Amino acid sequence: MASESEAQRALQYEQTLMYGRYTQDLGTFAKDEAARLRLQEGDTPRPRRPSELLEYSQGRCAPCRVCALQCQRFLISKVGEDWVFLILLGLVMALVSWAMDFAIATCLQAQKWMYGGLDTNVLLQYMAWVTYPTVLITFSAGFTQILAPQAVGSGIPEMKTILRGVVLKEYLTLKTFVAKVIGLTCALGSGMPLGKEGPFVHIASMCAALLSRFLSLFGGFYENEARNIEMLAAACAVGVGCCFAAPIGGVLFSIEVTSTFFAVRNYWRGFFAATFSAFIFRVLAVWNKDEETITALFKTRFRLDFPFDLQELPAFAVIGIASGFGGALFVFLNRKIVQFMRRQKTINRFLMKKRLLFPALVTLIISTLTFPPGFGQFMAGQLTQKDTLVTLFDNQTWAKQGINDEYEYLGILEAWRHPRSNVFVTLVVFIVMKFWMSALATTIPVPCGAFMPVFVIGAAFGRLVGESMAAWFPDGIHTDSNIYRIVPGGYAVVGAAALSGAVTHTVSTAVIVFELTGQISHILPVMIAVILANAVAQSLQPSLYDSIIRIKKLPYLPELGWGHHEKYNVRVEDIMVRDIRYVTLNCKYRDLQQVLHSTKMKNLPLVESAESMILLGSIERTQVGALLSSQLSPQRRLMTLRHKVLSEDGHRLSDSSIRFQISTETSSGTPARPALRKPLKPALKRVPSSPPDSPPAGSTDHTGIALKSLFCANAATEPTEEEMILGDKMTPAEILEWEEQQLDQVVDFSSAKIDPAPFQLVEHTSLHKTHTIFSLLGLDHAFVTSIGRLVGMVSLKELRKAIEGSLTGKGVKVRPPLASFRDSTASTTEADTTALRQLWDRHQHHHMPREASPGGDDDDDTPKGE
Amino acid sequence: MASESEAQRALQYEQTLMYGRYTQDLGTFAKDEAARLRLQEGDTPRPRRPSELLEYSQGRCAPCRVCALQCQRFLISKVGEDWVFLILLGLVMALVSWAMDFAIATCLQAQKWMYGGLDTNVLLQYMAWVTYPTVLITFSAGFTQILAPQAVGSGIPEMKTILRGVVLKEYLTLKTFVAKVIGLTCALGSGMPLGKEGPFVHIASMCAALLSRFLSLFGGFYENEARNIEMLAAACAVGVGCCFAAPIGGVLFSIEVTSTFFAVRNYWRGFFAATFSAFIFRVLAVWNKDEETITALFKTRFRLDFPFDLQELPAFAVIGIASGFGGALFVFLNRKIVQFMRRQKTINRFLMKKRLLFPALVTLIISTLTFPPGFGQFMAGQLTQKDTLVTLFDNQTWAKQGINDEYEYLGILEAWRHPRSNVFVTLVVFIVMKFWMSALATTIPVPCGAFMPVFVIGAAFGRLVGESMAAWFPDGIHTDSNIYRIVPGGYAVVGAAALSGAVTHTVSTAVIVFELTGQISHILPVMIAVILANAVAQSLQPSLYDSIIRIKKLPYLPELGWGHHEKYNVRVEDIMVRDIRYVTLNCKYRDLQQVLHSTKMKNLPLVESAESMILLGSIERTQVGALLSSQLSPQRRLMTLRHKVLSEDGHRLSDSSIRFQISTETSSGTPARPALRKPLKPALKRVPSSPPDSPPAGSTDHTGIALKSLFCANAATEPTEEEMILGDKMTPAEILEWEEQQLDQVVDFSSAKIDPAPFQLVEHTSLHKTHTIFSLLGLDHAFVTSIGRLVGMVSLKELRKAIEGSLTGKGVKVRPPLASFRDSTASTTEADTTALRQLWDRHQHHHMPREASPGGDDDDDTPKGE
Repeated sequence: MASESEAQRALQYEQTLMYGRYTQDLGTFAKDEAARLRLQEGDTPRPRRPSELLEYSQGRCAPCRVCALQCQRFLISKVGEDWVFLILLGLVMALVSWAMDFAIATCLQAQKWMYGGLDTNVLLQYMAWVTYPTVLITFSAGFTQILAPQAVGSGIPEMKTILRGVVLKEYLTLKTFVAKVIGLTCALGSGMPLGKEGPFVHIASMCAALLSRFLSLFGGFYENEARNIEMLAAACAVGVGCCFAAPIGGVLFSIEVTSTFFAVRNYWRGFFAATFSAFIFRVLAVWNKDEETITALFKTRFRLDFPFDLQELPAFAVIGIASGFGGALFVFLNRKIVQFMRRQKTINRFLMKKRLLFPALVTLIISTLTFPPGFGQFMAGQLTQKDTLVTLFDNQTWAKQGINDEYEYLGILEAWRHPRSNVFVTLVVFIVMKFWMSALATTIPVPCGAFMPVFVIGAAFGRLVGESMAAWFPDGIHTDSNIYRIVPGGYAVVGAAALSGAVTHTVSTAVIVFELTGQISHILPVMIAVILANAVAQSLQPSLYDSIIRIKKLPYLPELGWGHHEKYNVRVEDIMVRDIRYVTLNCKYRDLQQVLHSTKMKNLPLVESAESMILLGSIERTQVGALLSSQLSPQRRLMTLRHKVLSEDGHRLSDSSIRFQISTETSSGTPARPALRKPLKPALKRVPSSPPDSPPAGSTDHTGIALKSLFCANAATEPTEEEMILGDKMTPAEILEWEEQQLDQVVDFSSAKIDPAPFQLVEHTSLHKTHTIFSLLGLDHAFVTSIGRLVGMVSLKELRKAIEGSLTGKGVKVRPPLASFRDSTASTTEADTTALRQLWDRHQHHHMPREASPGGDDDDDTPKGE
Repeated sequence: MASESEAQRALQYEQTLMYGRYTQDLGTFAKDEAARLRLQEGDTPRPRRPSELLEYSQGRCAPCRVCALQCQRFLISKVGEDWVFLILLGLVMALVSWAMDFAIATCLQAQKWMYGGLDTNVLLQYMAWVTYPTVLITFSAGFTQILAPQAVGSGIPEMKTILRGVVLKEYLTLKTFVAKVIGLTCALGSGMPLGKEGPFVHIASMCAALLSRFLSLFGGFYENEARNIEMLAAACAVGVGCCFAAPIGGVLFSIEVTSTFFAVRNYWRGFFAATFSAFIFRVLAVWNKDEETITALFKTRFRLDFPFDLQELPAFAVIGIASGFGGALFVFLNRKIVQFMRRQKTINRFLMKKRLLFPALVTLIISTLTFPPGFGQFMAGQLTQKDTLVTLFDNQTWAKQGINDEYEYLGILEAWRHPRSNVFVTLVVFIVMKFWMSALATTIPVPCGAFMPVFVIGAAFGRLVGESMAAWFPDGIHTDSNIYRIVPGGYAVVGAAALSGAVTHTVSTAVIVFELTGQISHILPVMIAVILANAVAQSLQPSLYDSIIRIKKLPYLPELGWGHHEKYNVRVEDIMVRDIRYVTLNCKYRDLQQVLHSTKMKNLPLVESAESMILLGSIERTQVGALLSSQLSPQRRLMTLRHKVLSEDGHRLSDSSIRFQISTETSSGTPARPALRKPLKPALKRVPSSPPDSPPAGSTDHTGIALKSLFCANAATEPTEEEMILGDKMTPAEILEWEEQQLDQVVDFSSAKIDPAPFQLVEHTSLHKTHTIFSLLGLDHAFVTSIGRLVGMVSLKELRKAIEGSLTGKGVKVRPPLASFRDSTASTTEADTTALRQLWDRHQHHHMPREASPGGDDDDDTPKGE
């Protein structure tokens, strides 16, 4: 299964701290920016350009050229503006969307043409019907697999993770863009029940990332992280907007799907770009003579004066509730299929070998079942997704009613009629078959979304209910003066919004539906159904995107359900990790080494001393490693040696023995080098975590070298010739001794990058507030302090456990809701006071001698609880 | 002017810190909550209730009663659920909205009836036409003024402030609710150009606050601050939703208008409540036989197949741009009127005396001008706001065209026709007159909004453009095969959305317009016009609500405009206040006193010592005051005295002299007591800020007493009899001496409430990020630290200055964009390193003697730079 290897690949993420990051990069960036601005604004740094130009354009059109140059300069200065970026993004995405639609339509047309042309022989027809999509899907899967496996799937889960501030590698590159665009076109061209919405969110984000990189060539302001995140948020809106020509729904859907907290100022950006994009997308359709003017994508023509009767509302509510269950079932089914494929080792091994077999197999099954002369005749198999939707939203009533028996099926509506069964059977078969087909098809490792298939199924379900209602009340329910017949198409609209809302856990599908159909007359039924569907689905299953996030093991923060009061009672002190490793300001290099061995935390707190525990900042694990490796670096050893040589001039040993040492040193160093290629974790695991009390000589040597091998990438380790000559003047025993000496020195933090304001929480902070702050600031961890003293740490993991533990009832890592304040109210306040008192006492007796030396204390404290 | 006194009243707000607040209250709350939960869940605390019941219901229907009791208990346990609350809120608000609409319609009907009945005498007609609204408005103004002046105006600016976490007193009470509902009904019943949307947001919020207080009587979970804010956000959506029967637009509008950052989980709550509310609101209309079924409020019937031509888009864009200028002008005009009325002292003094004169005068002028037989005939004066909108959105073309000359004006459309002029003149006069009338009318001190009047003006402007287009292209622009005439009603819809969007700086007016008209076919023109209108208006003026916030001097944080790149370059170090007062852990009470005198900061940083400057927490100003006053309290003096008495038993003085001291002591204390009634600021101002270097004895005495008078409310100062007897045994000189002694003691912070984790920023944090964090967390101030050391502070004020300074170009408090990194890149990094080095050095030489004693250092350091 490709999705497994993809999940592994996806694990190579890194967390960017949105808050309190040490911004030395920003400093460098600012310098570059200053230089650029100076280039743009002041003319002094660019004095040669106009003169150069004037030199070689002494001819006729010199003023013309100067003018062009000025224009160019003006344009370049404008390139940095947000609106230019957004317009370009909208334009590009509209073109991509339109071109892709065109290509997909051509593909589907080709299939239809082949199928139609071969109507003499059913077997040939079947071969054509089945082979065509299989080839396309296989090509799509293979192409994506080879070029960029990141392009597989929807992309919305990944965008949600990226917008949280996590950097997913290779997810926003040109390669992935190309793979996704071509893969998606082929996948959708095959006629499988796949959607384009999710991938379009991803494509728009990639487009934004590429565009911003491209525009930064012309100057402008495109390197800022905060700005990039804002632009990505706008891009998500553009993605949905230009996919459905639904600017408002696009903005809202992208907000609901990707964000936990949303900045209203980005909202405006999203509207701007999505509107422009949708506009261009529809203008292209007019320009291509597909449409006479700008209209909705799936225009409906329901009557305006009496869209529905008040007494029909229960039926709409039923659609909503049933869609809620259906949506949850879809998510469940989709997840189970993925998990089943992974767990079945024999299938899995076979499929892993032949990666393209699974897509081909699935496509074969699905296309066989939809073959129109075969089983497809019972489920309108010959209709494309678009045609299906058009027919489902149709204005007419399909079921024959008492009065208007004369009604004839027209055009593509014919597909839904079967001579030996009625419309209801066709609809039920369609719904059941498409349901599992869609759930299965969306697990194929090609770029594909699940929104559109679910939307179609929902519409079919709504149609089914609507037709039943129409059959039940042939003259409508309302019998006052006029006869208003029931409009089953309205039910289809409601069903489509409700089911897609249930699967994605969004309310904005309602808006998308209005924009897609161009009618808003059913607003209340749609809203009621969508809300009921959401209420049911949210209580049963996570959304499809959250489900994929969990399957792919991306970092996430579960939503706090509403109405979970216990969240307000759980406090940080109930969930925090109390026993954490830390670095003290006056610690020794040996302590750093032990801390690195005893914990896997990516950020270590830096405290003033082990007694005061006052939090000064946080230091990255890699920085600690760099400190250690630079302390134990050969260069420093050489420096020491040189000093030694200079001071003790008489100690010149025979050169021959030293020459011998070179070879052993380098040979013992060589096997450690290739470990650099691998990620950090395995290398760390290889290091035995020896008890710090009794470090044997060999072990220390080993760790010394291991550490070097780990971190020498950070320090520049290109040995110069001089070093080579001097470096050999120590035996391994001497090196060991020297390293031991070095480890006993007090750490000099001056060269390390320290985050001077890591995020702090208080023990009393409620889980609710902690969740809010974590999701607001995109935090990965936070330290818990009590009047400056470090008392614990909360990371995303603890928070996730606390929320899910109390949500699902299993894996209870939290104390029961009441426990936290049955004993806390008095005691914690007292604890605070005591801590303060201690601090205060300590200051009072500031000059008193202490019981133990600070360094010794740290040695004992740091590795405790290992 | 009432709005001035209102502004003063509004200044009595207090900032609630959403982040890092010391939550001792939470502890108490948790205890209560635990007790309540125990009452609900465990049956043990309530054992008597069922037995009691069984005793007196031995009769027939005992099982019935037990069942009822169980139902009741179940209901009570459900009362705490969010959805119950939201449904109740939606229901109540729908009823309020419908009842109010009904009352307003009756009022307007009465006026029309009076006007119609008196058609024999124009003078009588005029009297009736003018008197009726004047009486209603005057009553509304008077009633509001007497009952709750907080009910005046829109309410959206206040809600925006409240949702930022600021507590505005008396804004969410029952009195204000009653005043707002009745005042608004009368104001709108008068027929003045006023709106109901803004006040409805306020009414819904009050309703939510009252409902949550009411439901908390039955148990449930209604005291949590975070939850209350979430519920208020949902209530704002309900307010708009049930006002226009526009659930989606309501949610979006309320988000745009009140929030900077929005939690997507609240969004769902808003949708739920707003949909339910809108549903009930429309069902009530059906029930009342106003409508046949649920439809839009201002239903339009534009053709669906060809809503507009692509070539009409420039006209829509023109509407958008013109509306942008118009909206900015409206905000400007509204503000200028308010400021003019305030500045004109003579008018002001006169109007202040006769508060009701101004509303009456304005109403008189406006109703005179709209008198239908008079000037009103040129501006469709006889139409109510609702009728105006219905006619403006009408499907027909008003201007007579070449072909359909046979077209006749029908019904209320008649009002727009004038025998001696044409439709264009009427429309222009209407727009111009209504424009200034609306801007003037919204300054009347009655509950009123500006949305609806602006909406109507926009619709009229759109209609004007549409009619012009229809006259220009009588057969439509598109001339391929069919003739599609231009629909001026569509232009009216676009104009309404654009102008109201421009005034409120929102995009969601587009959605409101779709929901109001029940048609979404004009989505692209509307979106384009709204976005253009916003772009123009946002660059010229703040939104109407922000303008009111500034006029009322409520705390606010200006939005960061988009495309202002310099925001990314300004850093915290450029805007922070470096010279701040602080409290050290080992300081003396005298230092506290000096800090209190030298600064007005509401939160003082608590640092470890003046050399280390390690930030430990923050302490509220009032807490510092309480510490001081308890140190200098009579009780402590008495305690000291008693100890003295016990130890030095022989020192008994004559009682008579002491008795004499009582009276002077109490008499000197008495005048200070009434000052307690007043807010803190004036009391503080009375204290002379004497230079701390030379505190004369008298001054200290004064400040000692002043401090006592300031803060004795905090400490329990009810003197017992024993104290009275012992308390007099000191002469004023002795008291002074004793106080001086006390001031020299080291502060014991153990009884003070300390915020153990105040928000920290780093010097490098960009203005953009700072703004984000401040608006995300609703901060009031943040300390700037560098590796644990306090280096400065940023408050809302500095941030505001920095943003507005660079936005408007005047009042430049920021360094120019480039200045911040021309010199900083290297130096600041170095500074960090140096600071770290110092800290490190200090630790290295920890046991070395210092140059000066820590206490002495503090004394010198604390008041420096005063």
